[in-house]
Amino acid sequence: MMKNLSNLSLHPVPGIRLGTACAGIKKPDHRDLVIIEIAEGGQTAAVFTQNAFCAAPVIVAREHLAMTAPQYLLVNTGNANAGTGEAGLADVRACCQALAAAAECPAEAVLPFSTGVIGERLPVDKITLAIPAALEKLEASAWEEASWGILTTDTKPKCFSSKLEIDGQVVTLTGMAKGAGMIRPDMATMLAYLATDAEIDAVDLQGCLKDAVEQSFNRITIDGDTSTNDACLLIATGKSGLRLKPGNAGFDTFSQALKALCVELAKAVVRDGEGATKLINIEIMSGASKAECLEVAYTIAHSPLVKTAFFASDPNWGRILAAIGRAPVSKLDLGKARIFLDEVCIVEQGGRSPGYTEEQGQQVMARDEINVRVELGRGEAQANVWTCDFSYDYVRINAEYRT
Amino acid sequence: MMKNLSNLSLHPVPGIRLGTACAGIKKPDHRDLVIIEIAEGGQTAAVFTQNAFCAAPVIVAREHLAMTAPQYLLVNTGNANAGTGEAGLADVRACCQALAAAAECPAEAVLPFSTGVIGERLPVDKITLAIPAALEKLEASAWEEASWGILTTDTKPKCFSSKLEIDGQVVTLTGMAKGAGMIRPDMATMLAYLATDAEIDAVDLQGCLKDAVEQSFNRITIDGDTSTNDACLLIATGKSGLRLKPGNAGFDTFSQALKALCVELAKAVVRDGEGATKLINIEIMSGASKAECLEVAYTIAHSPLVKTAFFASDPNWGRILAAIGRAPVSKLDLGKARIFLDEVCIVEQGGRSPGYTEEQGQQVMARDEINVRVELGRGEAQANVWTCDFSYDYVRINAEYRT
Repeated sequence: MMKNLSNLSLHPVPGIRLGTACAGIKKPDHRDLVIIEIAEGGQTAAVFTQNAFCAAPVIVAREHLAMTAPQYLLVNTGNANAGTGEAGLADVRACCQALAAAAECPAEAVLPFSTGVIGERLPVDKITLAIPAALEKLEASAWEEASWGILTTDTKPKCFSSKLEIDGQVVTLTGMAKGAGMIRPDMATMLAYLATDAEIDAVDLQGCLKDAVEQSFNRITIDGDTSTNDACLLIATGKSGLRLKPGNAGFDTFSQALKALCVELAKAVVRDGEGATKLINIEIMSGASKAECLEVAYTIAHSPLVKTAFFASDPNWGRILAAIGRAPVSKLDLGKARIFLDEVCIVEQGGRSPGYTEEQGQQVMARDEINVRVELGRGEAQANVWTCDFSYDYVRINAEYRT
Repeated sequence: MMKNLSNLSLHPVPGIRLGTACAGIKKPDHRDLVIIEIAEGGQTAAVFTQNAFCAAPVIVAREHLAMTAPQYLLVNTGNANAGTGEAGLADVRACCQALAAAAECPAEAVLPFSTGVIGERLPVDKITLAIPAALEKLEASAWEEASWGILTTDTKPKCFSSKLEIDGQVVTLTGMAKGAGMIRPDMATMLAYLATDAEIDAVDLQGCLKDAVEQSFNRITIDGDTSTNDACLLIATGKSGLRLKPGNAGFDTFSQALKALCVELAKAVVRDGEGATKLINIEIMSGASKAECLEVAYTIAHSPLVKTAFFASDPNWGRILAAIGRAPVSKLDLGKARIFLDEVCIVEQGGRSPGYTEEQGQQVMARDEINVRVELGRGEAQANVWTCDFSYDYVRINAEYRT
């Protein structure tokens, strides 16, 4: 039973403390450094970007994860430390070393994460100088503060929290994420940190995370661009004393709550996408396979013409149909397809639905959350992706960013 | 030997006459109807959109082409007659019938073409009423007038013309195209009409057109959206009396001139893409296969982050590298890749090129035609695509269009 999935009351997770500081990486007096401390005995699962051009911190985080159990996560914004070659690797190692020295742990117990501009050297001195301030502020109740500290061009923090009752015991699950642009996660997401006080074995924790990510962060797209720095972590501190194993009912309850949390965070990322004014759920039904449903969904979600029509609140179903028509799916017969905007059937038999009126379409388009349901009439498979519209502000943000 | 590839002097093609009229399809007093007459004995080759959701005129044009030699092309703008189902098919047949009656030819000798808004009924009455006016104006010298008549959101006409000297005889080659948005041609293009007075057999003409289109219109993308109404035609009237066959040198000269003409038209389409301020040639070298070079080129060309950086004249090489990194190419080692902006090497060994300065990048970015060369260091294959940047105006045009 899931309770209280809300960002108004963020439950601390016993075994996790968070500290935030202003390192002045890009702007002065801006929270841009976050440290997350994991108490001894915690298990950490992680998924990372599949972009072949991955950033230095992703390389080092993967390396450190393979060596020992993480005790600290070190997150900076304002600089992605990507495309920085050997120098970038040395920079991120120096930062891990600085935190390890201050916190008295091995450098391999620190996992580094960076987001921000690509191709500039990481300001190691600024980060090193700010580490003691962040360590001093470590607190279990600092999730909200930390969720501000990981943002870049996001306009609001994204964090959710729930308490689960399993076998008469209460387990906490809290998470935060950042997104904004270069968002089409592939096996991982932008940055997301999730924690629970349940006790879960490493292998089970990783499986649990992969499943949840597959149905949440891996089903969103803002602009089709996969980041070089994506990472999503799930920590199980074990402090509740409740042990969860696949096969017992409690594990399923937890897995479902984790998926729900990831879906809420993923939708919050899309809602706060660069320039986004609408959250659009694209749901493909009755496809021949899940893969083809996803191809159709992403083709619609990435069409600049569909996205600008949503921005204009224009029920331009012809653009949706044209996008479906160019999806890489063989022998698609659009005469069999039906398209709904929320409850309104707009297309059937290859053209405008006979009962459809422009007013009905306008009514749905005025909403800020819209469900596009496409029935392909080819089989039993289905899949969905969440996306947003394409606005002047997307162009403004990305034309001005870095300059 | 190719001469005079210019849109300043459009050479008439003996055997071809063009007439334009204002039918008032969307706006009054706007040239929106073009008729092209093909003299008896002309051969016509054609390629059409591969979008599964293809428009009624595409279906009928394919059908008529299979039945008899075309005598008239009937082109309207302002309405695409796509997504209009059975009614749309009846409408386009009625228009062909009207032209056939006025010109005294079988309806199957008329090929129809439409561009404009999707999903609205074609105004058959307006078109029928304007047909006599267009027929009355038929003239061999009316290419420029006609090239205005086929535009939608394009801002300028696109037409080029050349005269070839083959075996002491002169052959004319003239063509025009329209583009603007929903441009990622797939085995065909937006609308393009090409004509020559050479005599070429149907099969050879089709092969010639396919080859030229493959290396020109099929290598451009504005927004990745493939139109429902794409069509490209090549007419050989035979009026010069010069017969060209594969195997003779004249045929190669002609094929190369045709390709050059198509490339010029394709580049003009990109230059006049919706909101475009820059023409960008993305050239992928030393790939393992041509297919992978094209995957990388299109991934860069469709990245909204790369496109907005070009709009901002920002040499943001990290975004190019990130796009390459997410291209669907297996085992790509970006440590081996090099990227050039025109003559400037900006990236090598996975990071900023040691000698590169921001000033050099800025200098190239200020140009309105830019060559992006990516060397993958994996093999001998290469491919290129032309694209444009992504501006406020793209969003404005597509958010305002139709409303």
